[in-house]
Order: sequence, then C-alpha cells, then structure tokens
Amino acid sequence: MKLYKANIIFTREKDQFEVIPHGYVGVEDGRVVAVANHADAFDKEAEEIIDYGDCLLIPAMNDMHVHASQYRNQGISMDLELLPWLNQYTFPEEARYSDPHYARRMYSRFVRDLWRYGTMRAVAFATTHLESTRVLMELFREAGLGAFVGKVDMDRNAIDALHEPADEAIANNEALINEWNAPDGLVKPIITPRFIPSCSPAMLRACGELARKYHMPVQSHLSENAGEIVWVRELEPQSHNYGDAYDRYGLFGQTPTIMAHCVYTAGDELELMARRGVMVAHCPTSNLNVSSCMAPVRTFLDHGVKVGLGSDISGGHDLSILRMMVYAIQVSKMCYVRDKSKHFLTLSEAFWIATKSAGSFFGRVGSFEPGYEFDALVIDDRALNHDNYSLLQRLERFIYLGDDRHIAVRYCRGREIPEPSVVK
Amino acid sequence: MKLYKANIIFTREKDQFEVIPHGYVGVEDGRVVAVANHADAFDKEAEEIIDYGDCLLIPAMNDMHVHASQYRNQGISMDLELLPWLNQYTFPEEARYSDPHYARRMYSRFVRDLWRYGTMRAVAFATTHLESTRVLMELFREAGLGAFVGKVDMDRNAIDALHEPADEAIANNEALINEWNAPDGLVKPIITPRFIPSCSPAMLRACGELARKYHMPVQSHLSENAGEIVWVRELEPQSHNYGDAYDRYGLFGQTPTIMAHCVYTAGDELELMARRGVMVAHCPTSNLNVSSCMAPVRTFLDHGVKVGLGSDISGGHDLSILRMMVYAIQVSKMCYVRDKSKHFLTLSEAFWIATKSAGSFFGRVGSFEPGYEFDALVIDDRALNHDNYSLLQRLERFIYLGDDRHIAVRYCRGREIPEPSVVK
Repeated sequence: MKLYKANIIFTREKDQFEVIPHGYVGVEDGRVVAVANHADAFDKEAEEIIDYGDCLLIPAMNDMHVHASQYRNQGISMDLELLPWLNQYTFPEEARYSDPHYARRMYSRFVRDLWRYGTMRAVAFATTHLESTRVLMELFREAGLGAFVGKVDMDRNAIDALHEPADEAIANNEALINEWNAPDGLVKPIITPRFIPSCSPAMLRACGELARKYHMPVQSHLSENAGEIVWVRELEPQSHNYGDAYDRYGLFGQTPTIMAHCVYTAGDELELMARRGVMVAHCPTSNLNVSSCMAPVRTFLDHGVKVGLGSDISGGHDLSILRMMVYAIQVSKMCYVRDKSKHFLTLSEAFWIATKSAGSFFGRVGSFEPGYEFDALVIDDRALNHDNYSLLQRLERFIYLGDDRHIAVRYCRGREIPEPSVVK
Repeated sequence: MKLYKANIIFTREKDQFEVIPHGYVGVEDGRVVAVANHADAFDKEAEEIIDYGDCLLIPAMNDMHVHASQYRNQGISMDLELLPWLNQYTFPEEARYSDPHYARRMYSRFVRDLWRYGTMRAVAFATTHLESTRVLMELFREAGLGAFVGKVDMDRNAIDALHEPADEAIANNEALINEWNAPDGLVKPIITPRFIPSCSPAMLRACGELARKYHMPVQSHLSENAGEIVWVRELEPQSHNYGDAYDRYGLFGQTPTIMAHCVYTAGDELELMARRGVMVAHCPTSNLNVSSCMAPVRTFLDHGVKVGLGSDISGGHDLSILRMMVYAIQVSKMCYVRDKSKHFLTLSEAFWIATKSAGSFFGRVGSFEPGYEFDALVIDDRALNHDNYSLLQRLERFIYLGDDRHIAVRYCRGREIPEPSVVK
C-alpha cells in the first residue's frame, strides 16, 4: 500500500465536502484502501509515503460527452444553431477522419489536452470510421487514460461520406467489441447511434440489439434543440417523446446509457430517464454556444436522474471540466432566477456531479471512499493563493480561476500519468 | 515613427473585422499614424521596424467595471444574491482597505493581473478610503496603465466602517481631483457614488455638483438585481425609474457616465441612456454568478446605447476581457433563444464592444485608425495553432481558448508595458 499525503477534498454526498487537512489516502492495486488523518490509522503497512506538502488532492475529472473528432473545430464557428452547424462545420470535418493519419495527428493532441486539464476518464465520440476509431482507442490506452469510445453510427441525413449501411456499422462495432472488451480494460467501446435524425429505424434497431447481445453501454444525444425535437417527432411519430423513441429500440437504459444535453427534457421523458437510470451528460457551454438553451439540472437531481458534465467539444469550446462546473452553476442560477423553487447548484453539488456522479458510469470512480479506483489530481495552487484562504476557498478558487498550470500530478487507476506524446 | 509588423486585426465598425495579413501599424507620439500593407506606404520615415513575425496584433482590452478592492474575493463566495452578498462578503473585505499597507499588497497584485490578461485600461472602484485610493492610482501610474479610479462614496445602508459624511466624501474627492486631474494623465479620478441604496439624497446631490464643477466623469451601478430595483423605488419614489433617480442628481450623462449591469434596463430608462449617452458596462459573468440575470445587449445596440465589457471582480470571477467577450456572446444567445428578433452578438460585435466601443470612454482608444492611441497586444498563438487556421479563426480561438500565456507583448499609449511588480 502507498500513502499519498496532502490536503484531501472529495464528496461522498452531494451536499458537503469531505475535507481532511494534511491527510492520507492509502492506495493498493489502484484502489483506495481508506482515507485518514494519520499515517498510523491504516491496518496495512505503508511501503511508501508520497508527500505533496500543502497541495490539494482531489478526485480527477470525468468528461461525459466529447467529440474527439471535432477537436480541430474547438473555439471556431460559433455562429450557427445545431442543425446547420452540423451540416456546415461538423460533418465536413468528421469526413476527414477517413484518413487514419489525420486522425492520429488530431486525436493525439486531443488526448494530450484531456490529460492537461486533469480529465482522466472520457466518454467520447469518434467518427463512423473503424480504423480512426481504433486509433483513438490506442491513443487512450497508450496514455493510460480511461475511456468509452464510440464508433459513430449514421445512415441518413448527414453527408454521404459519413453514411454507412446498418449491417456494415454493426460488423465494425462487433470487430471493436471483440478487440477491446476485456473486463478490466480502461478503454472500451460504446454503442453510438449519433442521434435519431441520422439513424434509420433499421440502424437504431440493430444498435439496440447489439447493445443487448454484448451488454454494451450506449451513448447518444437527446432533446438538445427545439428544431431537432420537432424533426424527431416527424421521424418517429409513434413515440411519446424523443427519449421514448430511443427506448423502443432498446437504447434507453436497457444497458448503461448516457444521453447528452437533455435541455428540453421534462414530463414523461424525465420520468422515463429516472426509471431507466439513464445518465444526463450536461454540457452547459455547448448549450450556450449552439443557442440550444439551459438544461434544468436541479430538476434532474430532484427527480433522481443521474448527471455528469461534458465539454462537448466543439459545440463546447472548453475542455476543462473545472470550467464546466462553473458554467453548470451559472446556468442553474439562470434557471433559479426564473423559478426560485429550483435552487441553484452549490459548489459541492457541482463537484459531486463532475466526480462521483459522473464517475459511476466507469464503475467505482470519482471519490476517495474505500474501494474506489484512485483517479486523482494533485493541485499546486500557490500561484492562486496570495492570502490566507481556507482549504475550501482554495478549491473554489482553483475551480473558478485555475487551469492546467495548477495541476501538478495526475493519477488514473492508481498510476501516475505522464504527459501523452503528440504525433507530428 | 515606429512601424509594428504583424497580422493586424481590429474593428472600425461593429459588423466586420479589418484584417491586414503581415501588415504595418505606424506609431508616433503614442498614436497610430496609419495602417498599411507595405512599409513604404507611409508618408513619414520609419525610424525602426519591429517585426512580430506571424503573431497577431490587436487592440488591447478595456475593463469598464471592476472592483479592485474585491480582488481577494475573486473566485470565492458565489452562493448569494446581490444584496446579502454585499453585506456578508463584500463590505467586510472593503473595510480592510482602511489599512493602506493591505491595500498596496492587494492592489499591486490586482494591477499585475490586469496587465497579465492584456487589459491596458480600466474603470475601477477602489473603496471609501482616500489613502488606499491614492495607492491604487499610484500603482496604475507606476505600471503605465490607463485608469479611471473611483473613491467610493457611501453614507447609508452599508456598514459603519465604510460610511462617510457627504462633506468629507466631497472634500476627499476634491483632493484627488486636484492631485490627479492633469489633462493628459493616464490615471484619473472618477466620481463614484456606489449606488442609490448606499447614498443619501445629500450625497447624491453633492456628487452630481462635484462632477459638474470639475467636469468629472461618473460611474455607478444600475438595474442589476430585481430586489435592488424594488428598494430603489422605495428610496426614490419621485423618480420614474432607477436611471431617472441618478439623472435628477446630475449623475446620468451630464458628464461622461458609465453604469454597470443594466440587466433590467428597458423602456424609459433605456431611452434616457441613449439620449444622455450613458455607457453600459456589461458584466455577463457577474450577472450569472450573483444570480442577477442576462442583460439585453442587442437591445442596447439597437437603441444606440454605448456598451463596454466589465469583469466586475468579485461578482465576476474572471479578469480576462477575452472571456467576457465569450460570455457576452453566450448570454446574447440565451436572449436570442427567447426572442429570435434579437440576434445574438457576432464575434466582430463582441470584439468591437470590448475594444473600440469601450475605448471611447478613454478618448481615442480601442482601434488602429489614424489618431488612436496605440494600445495593443501582440498575440503569439502558436500553442493554439495546431492546424491551418485562417487569421480570423486564429483570433476566434485566442478569444475562446487563449489566456495570458499567449499574450507576448503589451502596449499602452505607444509604450511597451513590462510586468508590474508586486508588493510582498
């Protein structure tokens, strides 16, 4: 067992932080044994004590929705709403990933930048291309980061270069499942029908069957934009709502499922998500940038719907999940201004959502409770710390003001993760 | 005349960028002579050509509303609305500025951080304390940055330690005016009644008279929060609206005036602002953080009301005016979702607001047109520039993703500004 000494902060429950000044986390075989105030409080012998002095030690970040293949478009082309934005900017860029060399160059930078911002686990969209998707998975594995990586499935309403017949899509997914589905793997496939408009009923049905056959998780998009929702109603007239359309194909919680956005989710759709245990990937910057709207996160929590945070590059512009916490709080404040019964997110709630709640999609990830995988960040915030701040104020300042410069060391599953290399 | 060579980008009008790839800005006596494609296009002889290679050269940032004295509270205490937030967090911190040594230590860091984020001009609130306000002005002067600095005037509804009788407040303001009001000074006083609730009618009247007597500019807060507006209506029942209350005391455009927030400004108040030429300091992060709401920037522009951007530390958490552009665009998109006749801000509009529109409060500042003071940033964005991006895409990525690391050189009024020193 190794002991890590620092100012330890994490959340067991959403309503409060656990704070252990100059405390110890014991770690063995990549998992937390216990957290304690003193080194002699552990039952086991410590083979080594790694002392991070006055640094903060917090659980690492999880990005629950990110389009790795839109990395080049990060921070540009913010002038359209979702549907024209997809056609003009996003699909043409994704088509470039038919070239695995281009994919390797871009994806290697993407993975390096996830690392930079302290994101140790991600749920990522690749593209429709099998070979490029493999490249992304290999880069995650080489980096030592955890990821669910989705080969995207589409057979209509995108551009020809990104369409793929359902049987081919399923065969390609099966190839990835056979290659990558080791029980303890850090990098795994996830079934990824892009969204209802870009998948025919045959494709959706095949995706649902594939998920059930291999008990594979599922990711997609849900109720992001008003125009999109109208379109889905036309495409799936027999469904009660957008979520119900996925549900009819076995893509809504029959296996672990994460749905990005849910900006307009309410009523029956909300109840169905709670019942099925479908997680929302809340992407506040993307929802603002693409003029969607503001997702009702307090309502999700009140209804027992699971929530994590997503950067959603390149609808979102910022890879930092710290900054997503800030935006999530801000967006919840705008919902609160309209309806004071929906209290805005507290800092501990935003932190819990980003770490323990999101992390549950990967297993026992996102906390320092016993048995959790040790995914952690060592925060050296001296540059932010120009006066006597409490530990929680230091954490708050790091979340609001900090960046990659203040993350000194990163751990995923107990292993210290060096900077991933970038392909020229 | 010196020539600066780089990829030049600025806005003459809000609707488009001027882009001169590998162009030249001629500068003499701190002011722009002209901008040209070739070094031989200038009438005057160049004594020196300073070549910034493939960097971008853009006008520097202006922060039109920032509480220097809330610097310690930046990024903490985000859990209350405006009025309790003032009482619990802000007033106690401002009371510490009775100690000029504390003021020097904090203000020196504040000025250094403005510099770091490329803000060469600021309109700042100090505190009620004369000596500390002097300290802040001296620090701006030593740094070589431009600023209007307000000794804050309050005589009710704050805390005793911050109250000051009107006659004392006026005498202290006159002392600063006499010391600092050189016509060409980069650092000048500005009359600063905090807001209606914290100033008695006698204080407001005295402030208005002082502004008129010395033709001094004025800053304050306007229509930020629903509860505040109700309170102002009770305090000033004879006024038609919050803006009219200032107007009756000669504090609403009788001299150059800037009003922070204006979240709820509409109707007669909006018309009065347009007529009086009062500038809005739009502070989008602060409005989100303090649960105010979202200011209608498109409506301001449509009505010919002048707008600049403010960080509003510590209601706002981010000193970067680049990031304020992003938030201003995002907030305008949420207004657009509700009312599609109010188109969201384009990138050129946000840039124009932050540079040329805001800069007009300081004279001819914020553009590279002939006669403008040369306030400029040299942007070395190689770290952001991993593919072939156009110059405007590079600018957009710098605005959305960039930070102080990408600002290589800073100019204010033609002088290169080194990093200000910090007082231990």
